[in-house]
Amino acid sequence: MQTPWEYRYAHRMQKMGSSVIRELLKLTEQPDIISFGGGLPAPEVFPLKEFKDACNYVLDNFGAQALQYSTTEGYRPLRELIARPTVRYSFNMKPDNILITSGSQQALDFLGRVFLNRGDYIVVESPTYLGALQAWNAYGAQYISIPMDENGMIVDELEKALRIGPKFIYVLPNFQNPSGVTLSLERRQRIVELADKYGVPIIEDDPYGQLRYEGKDLPSLIYLDSQLRGDGDSYTGNVIYLSTFSKILAPGIRLAWVIAPEPVIKKLVHIKQAADLHTASFNQMVAYEVGKAGFLDEHVKVIRATYKERRDVMLETMEEIWPAGTSWTKPQGGMFLWGILPTGMDAAEVLKQAIEKKVAFVPGFAFHANGGGGNTMRINFSYSSPEVIREGSTRLGMLLRELVKSNGNRN
Amino acid sequence: MQTPWEYRYAHRMQKMGSSVIRELLKLTEQPDIISFGGGLPAPEVFPLKEFKDACNYVLDNFGAQALQYSTTEGYRPLRELIARPTVRYSFNMKPDNILITSGSQQALDFLGRVFLNRGDYIVVESPTYLGALQAWNAYGAQYISIPMDENGMIVDELEKALRIGPKFIYVLPNFQNPSGVTLSLERRQRIVELADKYGVPIIEDDPYGQLRYEGKDLPSLIYLDSQLRGDGDSYTGNVIYLSTFSKILAPGIRLAWVIAPEPVIKKLVHIKQAADLHTASFNQMVAYEVGKAGFLDEHVKVIRATYKERRDVMLETMEEIWPAGTSWTKPQGGMFLWGILPTGMDAAEVLKQAIEKKVAFVPGFAFHANGGGGNTMRINFSYSSPEVIREGSTRLGMLLRELVKSNGNRN
Repeated sequence: MQTPWEYRYAHRMQKMGSSVIRELLKLTEQPDIISFGGGLPAPEVFPLKEFKDACNYVLDNFGAQALQYSTTEGYRPLRELIARPTVRYSFNMKPDNILITSGSQQALDFLGRVFLNRGDYIVVESPTYLGALQAWNAYGAQYISIPMDENGMIVDELEKALRIGPKFIYVLPNFQNPSGVTLSLERRQRIVELADKYGVPIIEDDPYGQLRYEGKDLPSLIYLDSQLRGDGDSYTGNVIYLSTFSKILAPGIRLAWVIAPEPVIKKLVHIKQAADLHTASFNQMVAYEVGKAGFLDEHVKVIRATYKERRDVMLETMEEIWPAGTSWTKPQGGMFLWGILPTGMDAAEVLKQAIEKKVAFVPGFAFHANGGGGNTMRINFSYSSPEVIREGSTRLGMLLRELVKSNGNRN
Repeated sequence: MQTPWEYRYAHRMQKMGSSVIRELLKLTEQPDIISFGGGLPAPEVFPLKEFKDACNYVLDNFGAQALQYSTTEGYRPLRELIARPTVRYSFNMKPDNILITSGSQQALDFLGRVFLNRGDYIVVESPTYLGALQAWNAYGAQYISIPMDENGMIVDELEKALRIGPKFIYVLPNFQNPSGVTLSLERRQRIVELADKYGVPIIEDDPYGQLRYEGKDLPSLIYLDSQLRGDGDSYTGNVIYLSTFSKILAPGIRLAWVIAPEPVIKKLVHIKQAADLHTASFNQMVAYEVGKAGFLDEHVKVIRATYKERRDVMLETMEEIWPAGTSWTKPQGGMFLWGILPTGMDAAEVLKQAIEKKVAFVPGFAFHANGGGGNTMRINFSYSSPEVIREGSTRLGMLLRELVKSNGNRN
């Protein structure tokens, strides 16, 4: 029987739903499972010493400020620090273009609040980041899914979609979660032009931009947009850019940022004030201390070297073991790659058997806003050590050999 | 001229509005102003040493866990620690009845999401906490304001209000922000009974409950409700209880909790997952370390002694200086008292002149959901030292002598 509470919001329970992934991943929490399912950074690369030194420094020198209430916009020196990297693009970004959020997930949620009425359309890549879908499902969003190839979103499809009148375009240009694919420069330029032509904002979600293991950095959409419009001393363009300390410092401090035109930041500040007053003062001041003298620029090289090795081991093992008929992306950076099984195979079924073999991944259907992707899988390579990756990927590959063979026999 | 961004959400700008208080308080940020306007704890009572020791302990022993992603519900040992104080009420509260939030403001926001559709009614005290109004205005709430006297919400008015069909009743039972008033035991019981009779949930917001300077602790509404229904081994009642580490440890770490029936907690967990994944792991683990051996129970005695002295100085100075025709509440705890000027006087006008005398407070109208309260003011006594309080309250009292006199002459 339902409790009075369950009766009270039964209709909302259905709307918001439970997370499929969450339930599946609970199965993978047994300690003897090799999980390629999560999206966790490697704890070995957390800069514990520097973080601890910064905590002590902040508490010794600014303790009362660090433990007190602070402004909704965020700690100003931290916003200045974040504004600084944009100098290399020689484009004028100011602390007033920056809001500190409690993780990028909070920015996604707030942007849903800014833009969405129930039933509004959003353009997304297919597949796309699950957390964004969860954030915007809560506002009753509908999705226009644009297929991807090895160069990212297929832009010819985008113009058609823009004529439907979506509220914004959501893009993860670098080493996309979940696919690992990077959007080409040509397409970045085209998306920015199309967004300008149709007057549709772009949300550029870039948690992994600094984690490139080969090839050249590509300019962000927000930079291309600022060039397009020749902005003067402040950015007034079409792009809202998100990034985070989760992948370059640590996710457990919940610290991220939004770069956007000032009216957008003002609006987000109003929302944040009512939503949680401000992000923890202490965490912001510690992150500033860790980052102020350029430590993170050095530290990210360690992260890159660590994850590159893991990616390489994963790719080598797949090349070696995985059967004909399976394929996968070769990400130039980030934390994930995308596996594709022969048509007709169901990755969720494969997962059930994989868990028996003590190895796990996330079935790709979960990342599709409008269905499909049943034969795809997201594979994380940042969390486990190279040895564990080799073992897990071998187990999974051996299982797939069996399953692909019997799938072939059935067809 | 409006920017494209301002055009884009002009309608929402109006709906959500800017914070009147925020703008007014900007004026009071000049360093030579004595401000009774904010709601800040005294930084002198932050337990810096214990906090720093806990940071070091956590990073030395559980660094990788503290900096990693964690569960949406919150750090389990912290939830167990929070569940423990309820033992003294001999009522069965479990960690599964508890969700950790990033400050109570986040809980208010999430509860708006759970309960409210545009135009829904909420029963509030008049005056009530401004942050709650800001949170729920964003969901298009309407308010039924119940007047208060020195024993809190006037319950005879409540039953009429419940027949209108509000989504919930919002109550701050202890040393209410802004009025400083405490809800009597008799009324607590009556509110719980009425909520049960009409099937309307109660949100009990209790940030100051532990900050009592005289008199006896009164039972919480959630306890009275659990007694009413004789719950077995889990709370299934009508009350959602909020409290926070902001007033007993420090606000700059953004750490609070919700106690509620399990289906409510589950619902809030779904919302939190989409809204910010989880509250910072590090902050939760540090708060647990600070609190686990009972330190906060001792520490709160220091806070009580500090604030009691400040309250007493404030009350003595008001008694001494403030003119006939003004009156004020005598809070038994908390951080605020409520000043009442002669009818017809406008506290916002008084504030303008007070700022010239370098003293500030918050005009009471801001705490009224449906207008009124123009002649009232909220006065904080936790932040400034006793000497500063005496000086500020004297300045304000002298100003009020002039103003009340000329107000009398005009009438």
